[in-house]
Amino acid sequence: MTSMPSTLLAVVSAAPADNGVSVEQFLLLLAVVLIAAKVLGELAERIGQPAVVGELLAGVLLGPSVIGYVDPTLPSLHLLAQIGVVLLLFGIGLETDLKKLLSVGGAAFTVAVVGVALPFMLGVWVARELGLDLLPAIVAGAALTATSVGITARVFSDLGRLQTVEGQIVLGAAVIDDVIGLIILAIVSDLVAGNAPSALGVGRTTAVAFGFLGAVLLVGRFVVPPVFAVVARTGRQHTLATMALVLAFLLAVLASSVGSALIVGAFAAGLVLAPTEHAPTIERGIVRLANVFVPIFFVAVGAAVDVRTFGSREVVMVGLALTAVAIVGKFAAGFAPVWVRANKTLIGVGMIPRGEVGLIFAQTGLTAGVLNVGTYSALMLMVLVTTFIAPPLLRLLITRAHASTRIGVEPGSVVDMTTEA
Amino acid sequence: MTSMPSTLLAVVSAAPADNGVSVEQFLLLLAVVLIAAKVLGELAERIGQPAVVGELLAGVLLGPSVIGYVDPTLPSLHLLAQIGVVLLLFGIGLETDLKKLLSVGGAAFTVAVVGVALPFMLGVWVARELGLDLLPAIVAGAALTATSVGITARVFSDLGRLQTVEGQIVLGAAVIDDVIGLIILAIVSDLVAGNAPSALGVGRTTAVAFGFLGAVLLVGRFVVPPVFAVVARTGRQHTLATMALVLAFLLAVLASSVGSALIVGAFAAGLVLAPTEHAPTIERGIVRLANVFVPIFFVAVGAAVDVRTFGSREVVMVGLALTAVAIVGKFAAGFAPVWVRANKTLIGVGMIPRGEVGLIFAQTGLTAGVLNVGTYSALMLMVLVTTFIAPPLLRLLITRAHASTRIGVEPGSVVDMTTEA
Repeated sequence: MTSMPSTLLAVVSAAPADNGVSVEQFLLLLAVVLIAAKVLGELAERIGQPAVVGELLAGVLLGPSVIGYVDPTLPSLHLLAQIGVVLLLFGIGLETDLKKLLSVGGAAFTVAVVGVALPFMLGVWVARELGLDLLPAIVAGAALTATSVGITARVFSDLGRLQTVEGQIVLGAAVIDDVIGLIILAIVSDLVAGNAPSALGVGRTTAVAFGFLGAVLLVGRFVVPPVFAVVARTGRQHTLATMALVLAFLLAVLASSVGSALIVGAFAAGLVLAPTEHAPTIERGIVRLANVFVPIFFVAVGAAVDVRTFGSREVVMVGLALTAVAIVGKFAAGFAPVWVRANKTLIGVGMIPRGEVGLIFAQTGLTAGVLNVGTYSALMLMVLVTTFIAPPLLRLLITRAHASTRIGVEPGSVVDMTTEA
Repeated sequence: MTSMPSTLLAVVSAAPADNGVSVEQFLLLLAVVLIAAKVLGELAERIGQPAVVGELLAGVLLGPSVIGYVDPTLPSLHLLAQIGVVLLLFGIGLETDLKKLLSVGGAAFTVAVVGVALPFMLGVWVARELGLDLLPAIVAGAALTATSVGITARVFSDLGRLQTVEGQIVLGAAVIDDVIGLIILAIVSDLVAGNAPSALGVGRTTAVAFGFLGAVLLVGRFVVPPVFAVVARTGRQHTLATMALVLAFLLAVLASSVGSALIVGAFAAGLVLAPTEHAPTIERGIVRLANVFVPIFFVAVGAAVDVRTFGSREVVMVGLALTAVAIVGKFAAGFAPVWVRANKTLIGVGMIPRGEVGLIFAQTGLTAGVLNVGTYSALMLMVLVTTFIAPPLLRLLITRAHASTRIGVEPGSVVDMTTEA
């Protein structure tokens, strides 16, 4: 025995953690991801940007674009990232007052529907003008439809503006257009597979997706509080937070299995627990977990964007054209609920970031062979620009709104509705 | 589109999380593991047992033995379980006063060495008497050597006795015999591969393994506090806990890469941070994470034991014979430091549980073809019995010690040293 044989190390860890990734390699990966996310997140805050911008940038730097250390397709990393986004939306749900959310429900629904329709139509039109066939143009248009709930909610939360009318409308609209986005994804998947979608099928999927949210909120209001009262009475405090996490996981899985999204189920779990007396205890427990897992999600989103593909002039041109209609479409949607007194510019800008949902559309198209690598890269550029442009713009708008209150502004504006400390 | 196609769900989750395990399946698995661990953990406490007994039992029930829902070899589950044991030992290190630990260092070292030598020799002897060849007998003997730091530390912590002289001796001895166990594993791996281990090689591995712990503690005392002072000054409170987690991961990986164990590195990280002013902040953050991850580790340990293999009469006989010498050997080791005034029975019983380390030896032997399935199963029985017998015995001993103080007992006994609330 001259030195520790490498096979021994593998034995000590009992089994490789992933396809060829040892526990040691994975712990090192997590350490690097967390350091990069925290350092760049703190730096972003130093220059007045939300921390999420730094975390996304950490992902781009660590990902295949630059250093090539983080492979976002690594199954175990993907898993922890998904736990991160589930925790994020669960936490957002816990902080959300359902009554307040429903009071802006009409506005949120309007913003969501217009914010899906407009970018889709503009996207298909631009893509066709640029010479794409109909099917790729539809996939490209579809990739412009869904706002990233994660990024939007995180930015409003980072800036302490989640409880404003604007924050609630954007949150509601982003959740709704995630549900719509999944319906569109189902239609697009059918088209890509060569099947004609039926009106009946679309209607059923739509009913199930929206029905899930309603059913969970209705049933959950009656079932969950007594169950958690029992847990609180018999168990210790940390058991309560763990059981809340279990509820979030279960509703996420349930949502996904009926054709909605993991994050919609996690958000619903938060909404159901929010009015219970245990919400503060649960939130304290979840926040610690979220501090570790949520940055992993944003780093993974950043790492999924490969900036090396932006080398071609054509990719950049198509990409910027799609980016332009992606921004214009969502921005215009912010002004759709004409009857609401709110900062429409803030709503429109809040809907801009596409993030992970846009990437999923692009990947679907690429994997199915409908999109060529050029169009795929153009969509990645769209995701990158919309994701990075919105946080600083939002911050600017919110700071200006703050400044304007000091010199007197009419009631009902963003600042008056702020309930956060 | 008649219903949500199953391929679509896979697309929505972007990639399968593991070899064929989707994010949804994994979240469901985590939910089931956490529910079972918390319910059985609470029940165990109700009948006066440490929670860890319930968690291990949850693992046996969910594992291949009974229900067959939890596959402990699933890479992603194994990973989270390893994060769990790293967090556990990091937390234990954070609560440990190095001075106090070193003050019982001689006793701990004696318990560790005797507690390795005695069970090894007794194990080889019994195995030979029962007709095993020399090499399988050596592997079986080696599997009896290492106390499970995780189970031992958890039980003393659950019972609020980690800060007693007995708790510190057992903790120190368990960490030291983990290091010795890895050296033995290296020797055994060489033997199994048909290589004769050299005295020089063994000496070098031993020096590296113990040198690591010394070097980390020495260097860490100077380097870590200033680094964390900077983090505390520039970052937010939760960044501090995340960076502490990063340190634990990095030292765990470093320990493993020099031939020591992940958990030894994690424990060292805790020891280094324990005397800093940030220890309470870090501990609060880590406890929340540990509440979720640590039960996953114990469920995975429980699930790794397959009780179905205990059907054969020969397996049970060999298993019980090995169990007997495993218990006697460690129990006797508790009395080795004759000069120390402490409850030796408590120390001896505290060293009994073998847990995951014994399983790793057994798996190494089985994979290499040195152990047949019968001997492997016998070792599993030894692990199961020693793991489940120690917690209730410890609890009984500690309760009796408590009762005896009330009628007057000499100073220096277990109760007087209790510093925990």
